[in-house]
Amino acid sequence: MWRELLPIGRSAATGGYFRTPWTAAERECVAWFHEQAAARGLRLQGDRLGNTIAWWDAAPADPGSPAAGPAGSGVVTGSHLDSVLDGGAFDGPLGVVSAFAALDALRDRGVTPARPVGVALFLEEEGSRFGQACLGSRLATGATTWEQAAGLQDRDGVWFLDALERAGAPAGAPAGSAAGPANLLDRVGCFVELHVEQGRDLVDRDAAVGVASAIWPHGRYRFDFAGEANHAGTTRMEDRRDPMLTYATTALAANKQARLFGQRATFGRVDVHPNGTNAVPSRVTAWLDARAESADRLDALVAEVGRLGQEWAGRDGTTLEVAAESVSGEVRFDAGLAQRLAGPRDWPVIATMAGHDAGVLSAAGVPTAMLFVRNPTGVSHSPAEHAEAADCLAGVAALADVLEQLVAPEAADGA
Amino acid sequence: MWRELLPIGRSAATGGYFRTPWTAAERECVAWFHEQAAARGLRLQGDRLGNTIAWWDAAPADPGSPAAGPAGSGVVTGSHLDSVLDGGAFDGPLGVVSAFAALDALRDRGVTPARPVGVALFLEEEGSRFGQACLGSRLATGATTWEQAAGLQDRDGVWFLDALERAGAPAGAPAGSAAGPANLLDRVGCFVELHVEQGRDLVDRDAAVGVASAIWPHGRYRFDFAGEANHAGTTRMEDRRDPMLTYATTALAANKQARLFGQRATFGRVDVHPNGTNAVPSRVTAWLDARAESADRLDALVAEVGRLGQEWAGRDGTTLEVAAESVSGEVRFDAGLAQRLAGPRDWPVIATMAGHDAGVLSAAGVPTAMLFVRNPTGVSHSPAEHAEAADCLAGVAALADVLEQLVAPEAADGA
Repeated sequence: MWRELLPIGRSAATGGYFRTPWTAAERECVAWFHEQAAARGLRLQGDRLGNTIAWWDAAPADPGSPAAGPAGSGVVTGSHLDSVLDGGAFDGPLGVVSAFAALDALRDRGVTPARPVGVALFLEEEGSRFGQACLGSRLATGATTWEQAAGLQDRDGVWFLDALERAGAPAGAPAGSAAGPANLLDRVGCFVELHVEQGRDLVDRDAAVGVASAIWPHGRYRFDFAGEANHAGTTRMEDRRDPMLTYATTALAANKQARLFGQRATFGRVDVHPNGTNAVPSRVTAWLDARAESADRLDALVAEVGRLGQEWAGRDGTTLEVAAESVSGEVRFDAGLAQRLAGPRDWPVIATMAGHDAGVLSAAGVPTAMLFVRNPTGVSHSPAEHAEAADCLAGVAALADVLEQLVAPEAADGA
Repeated sequence: MWRELLPIGRSAATGGYFRTPWTAAERECVAWFHEQAAARGLRLQGDRLGNTIAWWDAAPADPGSPAAGPAGSGVVTGSHLDSVLDGGAFDGPLGVVSAFAALDALRDRGVTPARPVGVALFLEEEGSRFGQACLGSRLATGATTWEQAAGLQDRDGVWFLDALERAGAPAGAPAGSAAGPANLLDRVGCFVELHVEQGRDLVDRDAAVGVASAIWPHGRYRFDFAGEANHAGTTRMEDRRDPMLTYATTALAANKQARLFGQRATFGRVDVHPNGTNAVPSRVTAWLDARAESADRLDALVAEVGRLGQEWAGRDGTTLEVAAESVSGEVRFDAGLAQRLAGPRDWPVIATMAGHDAGVLSAAGVPTAMLFVRNPTGVSHSPAEHAEAADCLAGVAALADVLEQLVAPEAADGA
């Protein structure tokens, strides 16, 4: 599976991945997913967006019941295949590859599932195109409505619905359900997402695999700094209203605040207008990614960065407007499920600062767990992201164990 | 003339101009120039790049001499029609429109020039596409060679020669001279460029028109800040090597240095990689536009900004490389010519911090002068750039006076 996936959307220059939703590289990844499902005889269920679950239907306990099984009966695993710009090979794909590999392991073990088992693929998890992380799972759960999504534009000004229409369905895709996206999750009784760790907790704990306890609250905030365009040569420094200076001061202040309180604040995306060498900019738009251990502390962090920015805007003769683009509250994963997974195996239970589709499903009331695979450097969202093969295989075995436990006949009434 | 020019390349959103060299809008401006020349019966002379002089040939004193007149006999005025990104209406076009209007005024006055009079159009003056200001006049004078220009790429990675070839020649353009660009300037005996002022000196001095004494040395320097891409959520602040922070500190330091010494330092263009909201960037490239009153002080300013940036890079775990993309030494315009123009009329003589094609021609040994037209706010390189109609007409009258003086039979042996 890796041999097929690794070349898709990879930059020869950086070695990183550019699998932006509804571009050719990402469509190729999605087509690969459909091929993998077809090769295993899995039944595809898609929604209007293109989120897909590949089902291994359970042998019906009652020969009269429908093959697809009753609502809430399914045990689903999976992840996403899109990437951040210039991202790593593992963030997303490791969860999908491990899901198929875990199903293969179950078959090799001769397991006959008492519940349907599914491999899920969620689209636009990174938010690299329309700015909203977990857009696919948010549409599937209704956390984001289609009306809200219709208002999203990518950085080239392409509207969300236009991008969808232009891309069309990838080869092998099931027809979208006319009844709407909610149906995709109807049969999902629990969801387990395996993911490469994006920090170094498992390295510190000397463990190949861990279980997630919670996701920190986090959000994306657009900071619009406005000033006055002017000639970079002839305009006296003291006559300028330069939003670049207000931005620079605000970016440094955000960093300092997050350091002070052990939180996270990042300005990783900047858009300057007109972005000419010999022009004082009229506008700098920058996006703050902020994360903190509680919703209150996240609000306080963003408010303080905004307050400092406003203070500097006042001195620079510029203005600052702050708008929350997406905010996710704290996610506490199903404690019982986590305990059932981690307990017998002594896997560490750790919090994460990264958002995941599992968090969206958990917030929507689906019993949800996450498994992490050790990342030797902790580096992620980067071409340097890595996981050792042995740790990846340990992850597949762990996921297979978890699925086997969940689909065993004695478990089919629980979870 | 303004009625035809004003709509070309104007953004409905900002009201500013996007006349980037060798794009449709700029090609339309160039075609307009050729039409204006043709409507006046002027003879077009172009070079390989597309720089053009529209000649009003003098009546030959000796009926046996060539119609084009001997080398160095021409009095040339003109400017450029390209714009910075989201620029104003006057920077460039005011000089071209005033040049044609001044020729019309000479004809209305019944002047029969004893020397050829030309209206010059230079391309890529702003450097908005290939990063080198005054590229057209630099190629015409040989200050930049074609071999050097062939190594230039625009921000989309298009090579200079490919852009030229794709654009083709605009309608009405003369065939390029096979003998090379130097020929274009062979007959130019002196050059007078009229330009909207880009500061407020003329406002302070209560004058509609002024004469330039000198151009400050100035340059463009690329600052490459490199760090390590990483996940914006999971990477602890103290584990990061974030080049955005080094850039922000450097931009603030540049501003402070320029303020301290009455110089100019601007970071108006920034390119972030991968520029994703939830990724610590791996690289930030920013361009410093710096100007100072002497070459030594310019060098010292850039060196100090670079030194401070290096110091911060060391603390941030990032690296900084600084490369000069283009540096222009001080230009002192022809003092005798300035005195002849300004003296009788009591026009103020002022220095400018902006580069111009006139500066390039002056550096190449062409006796050169500049006229400035008052700008009520001083704002330039911005949609808000403005000049009052009365001041523009005063500029045309001033330019016509200057040309009349230079082409009068008694002046034909001088200057």
